[in-house]
Amino acid sequence: MQIVMNRDALNRFLRERFVQVADAIRVEAVTETGALVRLAVDASHLRPGGTVSGPAMFGLADVAIYLAILSRIGPVELAVTTNASIDFMRKPAAGKDLLAEVRLLKLGRQLAVGDSLIRSEGVDQPVARCSMTYALPAQKS
Amino acid sequence: MQIVMNRDALNRFLRERFVQVADAIRVEAVTETGALVRLAVDASHLRPGGTVSGPAMFGLADVAIYLAILSRIGPVELAVTTNASIDFMRKPAAGKDLLAEVRLLKLGRQLAVGDSLIRSEGVDQPVARCSMTYALPAQKS
Amino acid sequence: MQIVMNRDALNRFLRERFVQVADAIRVEAVTETGALVRLAVDASHLRPGGTVSGPAMFGLADVAIYLAILSRIGPVELAVTTNASIDFMRKPAAGKDLLAEVRLLKLGRQLAVGDSLIRSEGVDQPVARCSMTYALPAQKS
Amino acid sequence: MQIVMNRDALNRFLRERFVQVADAIRVEAVTETGALVRLAVDASHLRPGGTVSGPAMFGLADVAIYLAILSRIGPVELAVTTNASIDFMRKPAAGKDLLAEVRLLKLGRQLAVGDSLIRSEGVDQPVARCSMTYALPAQKS
Repeated sequence: MQIVMNRDALNRFLRERFVQVADAIRVEAVTETGALVRLAVDASHLRPGGTVSGPAMFGLADVAIYLAILSRIGPVELAVTTNASIDFMRKPAAGKDLLAEVRLLKLGRQLAVGDSLIRSEGVDQPVARCSMTYALPAQKS
Repeated sequence: MQIVMNRDALNRFLRERFVQVADAIRVEAVTETGALVRLAVDASHLRPGGTVSGPAMFGLADVAIYLAILSRIGPVELAVTTNASIDFMRKPAAGKDLLAEVRLLKLGRQLAVGDSLIRSEGVDQPVARCSMTYALPAQKS
Repeated sequence: MQIVMNRDALNRFLRERFVQVADAIRVEAVTETGALVRLAVDASHLRPGGTVSGPAMFGLADVAIYLAILSRIGPVELAVTTNASIDFMRKPAAGKDLLAEVRLLKLGRQLAVGDSLIRSEGVDQPVARCSMTYALPAQKS
Repeated sequence: MQIVMNRDALNRFLRERFVQVADAIRVEAVTETGALVRLAVDASHLRPGGTVSGPAMFGLADVAIYLAILSRIGPVELAVTTNASIDFMRKPAAGKDLLAEVRLLKLGRQLAVGDSLIRSEGVDQPVARCSMTYALPAQKS
């Protein structure tokens, strides 16, 4: 799986096409197995008690795995998430950003699959695990 | 499974304890199998193109199943979502609210399980299907 | 979703193409929402202690949802399961068959989705809940 | 997470308590993150066409993650699988054993979570990905 979009290209794509999440989400690195993506946690992501909400973690995993796919197939806008399964395992640490480490597992003609471990920055034990499937648009041939 | 919190009690709980979602989410009915819960879709839930975002649907399912559980066990604040699996099946209809129909499947001592079909209001075909597990706090005895 | 294979046609398909499961699995009915499928539990399905094993329940759900799809699209052999999520909620009752009640949720061009509640015969509370996605072979047109 | 049962202890446990799967399943190694477990594929695991069946892969993942948990907590017999999500991504290679590589993600007081990549022996691309949750029996204190 050759890399066709690097970190800067993915961050530019994010700012241009996903304005509503681009403030908080940033690709840190395109990696050998996928990508490392940061959620800069702010008040809008928190539940009472100061913990990051489930939907915010779901959104991070969704964008992170999607961007990891794009790093290998280029700026496809029409991929849609068809399935997600997520395990919430620990409370995120207060006042820390979240980092999603993505592994690409399949890049097929019709479907792409990846998973992600989400950690509070600087903490080894994962906060959540998520796997997602995306339906890719039919390719012209 | 006897009903211990009705629609009004759940909506009051939502406004008091979940301020950040209470504007958009509203219990329509407590039903024989669970509950019917509305997401009043506004601009904050939309992706470019006008479709409701995945995290917004995830958030609806999470709150809806949680409230259906509370309708049977009362105002427990400490339940945490441990697992979710979601299938996104169709594009939500533009300009329509979403309705989550919840079925409670298990109310155990430690774990509760429910699932939900999400539909655009007035459309029969479901937009998404979601199942979730919650860990319940240990009961005093 | 019109019915194109009825109970007898599905059971014949099962005996001809799925010899290895056809002894134990039988379509009871094609229903408005999907199908009702029986696992005639025998010693090969049991774990020590006499309870039906997880893989046996997984196998029942997989065949049941697949047959429900065929009831609407005809005898397609090349559909493959791409994703499954299953919640095991209660111990099956000893000495009882299992019944899988299937709901078809999506029959798309590329993907089909269904879910199933599995119950011990005569017991109302479900033993397991399962949802599955199938990739359908490209249609000639 | 200290290792309290090594490879030989796990294989002995398997032969004594899980007779019905012990012929085909064997722990290859207890690893830093979990365990590596082999399914010695035979005719009973195959679907027509010679590919390993979904239930056989599900069963491998279930036993493999369970054994990885026991490698850290000792010979607990009463853990039960409460949730599984599995992605089937490629056809297993014909005539090859399957190897499940397990990562333990959480060992809590009530719940344990792990995931596994399943590969055909000698093939790098994974055949399936599976995550599972187990409810642990209450500990005496």
